[in-house]
Amino acid sequence: MSAAEDRLRKYAQLAVNVGVNLQPGQVLAVNAYIEHAPFAREIARAAYEAGASFVDVQYADQHVRRAHIASAAEDQLGYSPPWAVERYDELGRIGGALLAISGNPEPELFSDLDGERVGKARMKEVAEASLRLSDGVCNWSIVAYPNEGWARTVFDEPDVERLWDAVAHAVRLDADDPVAAWREHISRLQARAAALNERRFDHLRYRGPGTDLMIGLHPESAWQAALDHSNGIDHVANMPTEEVFTTPDSRRVDGYVRSTLPLQIQGNIVRDLEVRFEGGRAVEVKAGTGEDVMRTHVATDEGAARLGEVALVDGHSAVGETGLVFYDTLYDENASSHIALGAPILQAVEWAGALAPEERVERGVNHSSIHTDFMIGSNELEVDGVTASGDAVPILRAGDWLL
Amino acid sequence: MSAAEDRLRKYAQLAVNVGVNLQPGQVLAVNAYIEHAPFAREIARAAYEAGASFVDVQYADQHVRRAHIASAAEDQLGYSPPWAVERYDELGRIGGALLAISGNPEPELFSDLDGERVGKARMKEVAEASLRLSDGVCNWSIVAYPNEGWARTVFDEPDVERLWDAVAHAVRLDADDPVAAWREHISRLQARAAALNERRFDHLRYRGPGTDLMIGLHPESAWQAALDHSNGIDHVANMPTEEVFTTPDSRRVDGYVRSTLPLQIQGNIVRDLEVRFEGGRAVEVKAGTGEDVMRTHVATDEGAARLGEVALVDGHSAVGETGLVFYDTLYDENASSHIALGAPILQAVEWAGALAPEERVERGVNHSSIHTDFMIGSNELEVDGVTASGDAVPILRAGDWLL
Repeated sequence: MSAAEDRLRKYAQLAVNVGVNLQPGQVLAVNAYIEHAPFAREIARAAYEAGASFVDVQYADQHVRRAHIASAAEDQLGYSPPWAVERYDELGRIGGALLAISGNPEPELFSDLDGERVGKARMKEVAEASLRLSDGVCNWSIVAYPNEGWARTVFDEPDVERLWDAVAHAVRLDADDPVAAWREHISRLQARAAALNERRFDHLRYRGPGTDLMIGLHPESAWQAALDHSNGIDHVANMPTEEVFTTPDSRRVDGYVRSTLPLQIQGNIVRDLEVRFEGGRAVEVKAGTGEDVMRTHVATDEGAARLGEVALVDGHSAVGETGLVFYDTLYDENASSHIALGAPILQAVEWAGALAPEERVERGVNHSSIHTDFMIGSNELEVDGVTASGDAVPILRAGDWLL
Repeated sequence: MSAAEDRLRKYAQLAVNVGVNLQPGQVLAVNAYIEHAPFAREIARAAYEAGASFVDVQYADQHVRRAHIASAAEDQLGYSPPWAVERYDELGRIGGALLAISGNPEPELFSDLDGERVGKARMKEVAEASLRLSDGVCNWSIVAYPNEGWARTVFDEPDVERLWDAVAHAVRLDADDPVAAWREHISRLQARAAALNERRFDHLRYRGPGTDLMIGLHPESAWQAALDHSNGIDHVANMPTEEVFTTPDSRRVDGYVRSTLPLQIQGNIVRDLEVRFEGGRAVEVKAGTGEDVMRTHVATDEGAARLGEVALVDGHSAVGETGLVFYDTLYDENASSHIALGAPILQAVEWAGALAPEERVERGVNHSSIHTDFMIGSNELEVDGVTASGDAVPILRAGDWLL
């Protein structure tokens, strides 16, 4: 076995055993692009080694999707194939697991299409089924596969080996004992979440170039990190993960914020995103590129213009250490503090899962079929936690974690 | 546009407009291998041009399947994902269309695995749903895409251009007006079917090296050719197609038969297949390679050991003219007379579709979740039609059609 084959095999095993934490007898669904086939095949092998009963790999093809967006009738743009919904629903019923592969081989493939059509071409029912599944019903993970197209986006040349080095470092595949390294990393992040939970801040205050933002926190929301617990199984939903995150109060967000890293979404890269919030709602959305896509995206449903997640990342993460812009949210959001429009982290608020969406929304826990993170962190961003009595406690300064 | 791009585009248009005969507003499901992506993308474009409401391409990956066969628990080998069944069922409900792409890039990928496990690893419920759909419910077609792996199998070298020449000739893409050429070709084959229907033979008699076989025909079965009529739409289910075919009496098949071309099935190539029939049942199955796979396959269900189709092809077909062995049933069966184990051509017997499977079987129309053609024709094979009164009428001699 070549060193490259060995690396790929170990990475697949890490994704299956630490990321998904696949249990014997589980069905594993894998979502990949066709360009991810070498990795998907290794994942299938690793999954059967771990006792999978069946592995279902669904390969997406962006060129087929492009043809749909370019040519489908207006009222068919958002068509959700019922069998794709059924796949997620059945996976929930049988207690299956899910692994998504990121690393988009052509992240700007739709950038020359009509932005409004791109924004409307969302499979809403599929997205909702996927969210139902990831809200504690199934053990899942996202990992990225270095490929030529992605490397070209990052380096302006298809230097896949250089991208592999960054990815291997970020997911701790370069550690002597990656599993032990993950155990230690999880503990460190969970300690950070515990420190935040102890403080019970009323809100966060962000200040930096182009940013002056207040995000209200829930009195009952808990900060989380690294390890999720779904269907009775501990799993690492993002590899890498460097964030502590929670569900904010979707009614109490005010001010303006400027993104610090590009956002890859629906075949477009949204650059220089600026959003202004009033009473929790994004009332102004501007961007250097991809503005139409982003505006349409934020108009998907009522909750798409409100925050569902707030996450803090310091300037010294394993992803940040690479010094790269990845144009891939899984990576960029783990190098930078970020916030997400749309669906909340349901498990962060104990009572949220038991309530109907409308009831949750009334209590400030958002509901939406989108969940779109964008990066707002930098070494120039100051983040304070503010207590109910108005005391401001520095959390992030110059990229350093101070709490 | 390069000549190769132009050829691919025209081929996709032929498949969509003549093969499937896609109607505006239809959903088109496409089944492909990931190695077929360039063609699947052109098909998607051609389908939207023709007014498709949505195109769903499902890419199969044989390496993922191989991992399943190699490692899944015995009782999970035949697992059918319910969402794959739902895809076909929903397609039937909404009046969708189906296009399958053949041209296996690695036709012997499972040949080193346990043949019995390979034979058992069939998605029975998916196969049954697929048969429900192709039995007159949806307009469908199969076309092949020349690719490196397939070319290597045919020529012992990846000469894709040479394979393209053969394929373009077989599907009449090299005609000045391919659509007109197809119209003419369909008429010629239908005249042949009409001539057979006029004769109302009681049975067919096959004699050749290793073959002495009697196949009973139904008094009420009709010979068909080239054009199917499903869901109110005329479509060409196989491109190429060179056969006239019907459903035999599954109770009246006796004698022995030797295959004249290899049969690619489930990651194996079955060579030198010999089958002996008694009272309609295959009671002996031998093969030079792939015997275990074939034996297990024939034991899939009660009807898998009986015939569902009999088809006649002369020695001068456009496929036969290439002089090649394709190791792909779509091609090889259109260069050679063949018979199929398993599911019948339901539309060939007027009353069959209205009966429950058990009732049909009682009347000699087979039922099975498999439908597996194998090639028995050659220039040495003599085929007679025998009337109820015992008169033998030569149909095929030295590859020539005599009727």
